[in-house]
Amino acid sequence: MLENNTELIKMAFEESIPMHKFLGLKIEILEKNFVRVSVPFRNELVGDFRNNIWHGGVIATVMDSVGGVIGALHFTSLEDKISTIDLRVDYLRGAEPQAIMVEGKIIRFGNRILVARMKAFQNDQLIAEGKGVYNFVRKNAIGEEADDDISEV
Amino acid sequence: MLENNTELIKMAFEESIPMHKFLGLKIEILEKNFVRVSVPFRNELVGDFRNNIWHGGVIATVMDSVGGVIGALHFTSLEDKISTIDLRVDYLRGAEPQAIMVEGKIIRFGNRILVARMKAFQNDQLIAEGKGVYNFVRKNAIGEEADDDISEV
Amino acid sequence: MLENNTELIKMAFEESIPMHKFLGLKIEILEKNFVRVSVPFRNELVGDFRNNIWHGGVIATVMDSVGGVIGALHFTSLEDKISTIDLRVDYLRGAEPQAIMVEGKIIRFGNRILVARMKAFQNDQLIAEGKGVYNFVRKNAIGEEADDDISEV
Amino acid sequence: MLENNTELIKMAFEESIPMHKFLGLKIEILEKNFVRVSVPFRNELVGDFRNNIWHGGVIATVMDSVGGVIGALHFTSLEDKISTIDLRVDYLRGAEPQAIMVEGKIIRFGNRILVARMKAFQNDQLIAEGKGVYNFVRKNAIGEEADDDISEV
Repeated sequence: MLENNTELIKMAFEESIPMHKFLGLKIEILEKNFVRVSVPFRNELVGDFRNNIWHGGVIATVMDSVGGVIGALHFTSLEDKISTIDLRVDYLRGAEPQAIMVEGKIIRFGNRILVARMKAFQNDQLIAEGKGVYNFVRKNAIGEEADDDISEV
Repeated sequence: MLENNTELIKMAFEESIPMHKFLGLKIEILEKNFVRVSVPFRNELVGDFRNNIWHGGVIATVMDSVGGVIGALHFTSLEDKISTIDLRVDYLRGAEPQAIMVEGKIIRFGNRILVARMKAFQNDQLIAEGKGVYNFVRKNAIGEEADDDISEV
Repeated sequence: MLENNTELIKMAFEESIPMHKFLGLKIEILEKNFVRVSVPFRNELVGDFRNNIWHGGVIATVMDSVGGVIGALHFTSLEDKISTIDLRVDYLRGAEPQAIMVEGKIIRFGNRILVARMKAFQNDQLIAEGKGVYNFVRKNAIGEEADDDISEV
Repeated sequence: MLENNTELIKMAFEESIPMHKFLGLKIEILEKNFVRVSVPFRNELVGDFRNNIWHGGVIATVMDSVGGVIGALHFTSLEDKISTIDLRVDYLRGAEPQAIMVEGKIIRFGNRILVARMKAFQNDQLIAEGKGVYNFVRKNAIGEEADDDISEV
């Protein structure tokens, strides 16, 4: 883990990633194995216009980001990357037109694979749960190449 | 199925849903069991700013919408609703800064439950696959109430 | 909920379901929103013969059953049924040749849809997590038919 | 890929893996990117004893195995291993008391990660679909250690 990179990660995620900047995503807590972000409501994110409910895909988006943030805490080089292998979301209730909080926690951690569990809340009420599987692509590993030979066989 | 509602659904999805309007989502094909939508690239949707790659959550968002569109074709009243129970996405390669196409197809269809399979493409290359499980909430069902008593037991 | 059906459910699940009888599945705790079952190791369940590790599919099987047991607690008729819509398992470590415990908890509950979260343990160590989405088919609902018109559209 | 290992893989999967031997799993087709296995019905596999329907977990088990078989075709050493990271199954209809066929196909392939898509059939009718994400642990990779430092952080 890169030391003292917490502020760097926070700034990169909030300011340099266009999707996060658009969402107004803020990292509230950033610990080695726990992340909490908040995203304010904005009208462009509505999916159910009759009830002014957030589009569920936005919650998936924030969950994916939360897994990425928590993975970034475990980068060993600034050139490391993390990509999502799969993402799954269970929607428990519609998200009202107010801020959401999404928390993430690592449940499996290896040199190459990270699995994170995410929960989304509004006013302390659970609104969705998710899981993400991520692939670390570490740039400074000696004698190792990126697992990027992805192809449809 | 509501007759002649194809144009209505197309207009509602493209114009009335704020998230779709923001995304510039266009319904290219809308058949009883097949939907194709396109979404142009825009900079706010970038998740990997070093490589200008779409945020994977946006692809999840469009997949969720595609399942919703295909479900809406099977509404029996304009007051019917469809909500996502769960959504899963497998990311196969990063999405380049150009338009994406997402297709959906029903694989299970009941009065209450719909399961749809989605595929995302760029230039005919498969970039992601997904599945969504949806809950129909039909307003005109006689003697039946909505299954909205969702609660954490 | 059927009153006093706890013993009936326990007996039906342990003795009447052939797969459970084969597995030697025992219901250790059976509460309205919490179930714990145990399954002893047996050699037929091995998937990795070089390391004598349980086949991961057996853990999926037990998780599916745990969701079914917890759903059965909420039957309103002995003729109610519950069927699995989808099941997802994250494997965190290989299961050693000894008993497994699997716990389940409801995270979403409606008249038709149940979502359960499962965890598998060996010696208090988490070895896998899962989610299941289930469909209640209630036989005594007035004016309601079973959602069994499942078809590939 | 190990040359001429098709017969070896077939024998190992059918005869050496206890779970497969119990199930009577037979590999019908074994190609670089396509596998079909069959499993006969047997009473121990019933999950719904009122309707004599297969336990859904057995279908998950066979799907997991199919992903493992197709991965084994891409081993580069007899000491390579493959482990399941996650498995997801959508159940489309109950499996009648007769043989099932399960097919698998690779949709993502890397040095470390494999994603496979599975379909289960009875009499050419689709009864379930699945996805599995697998982790290759290659023993003969120079300068590389197995990604087995899995831990709850």
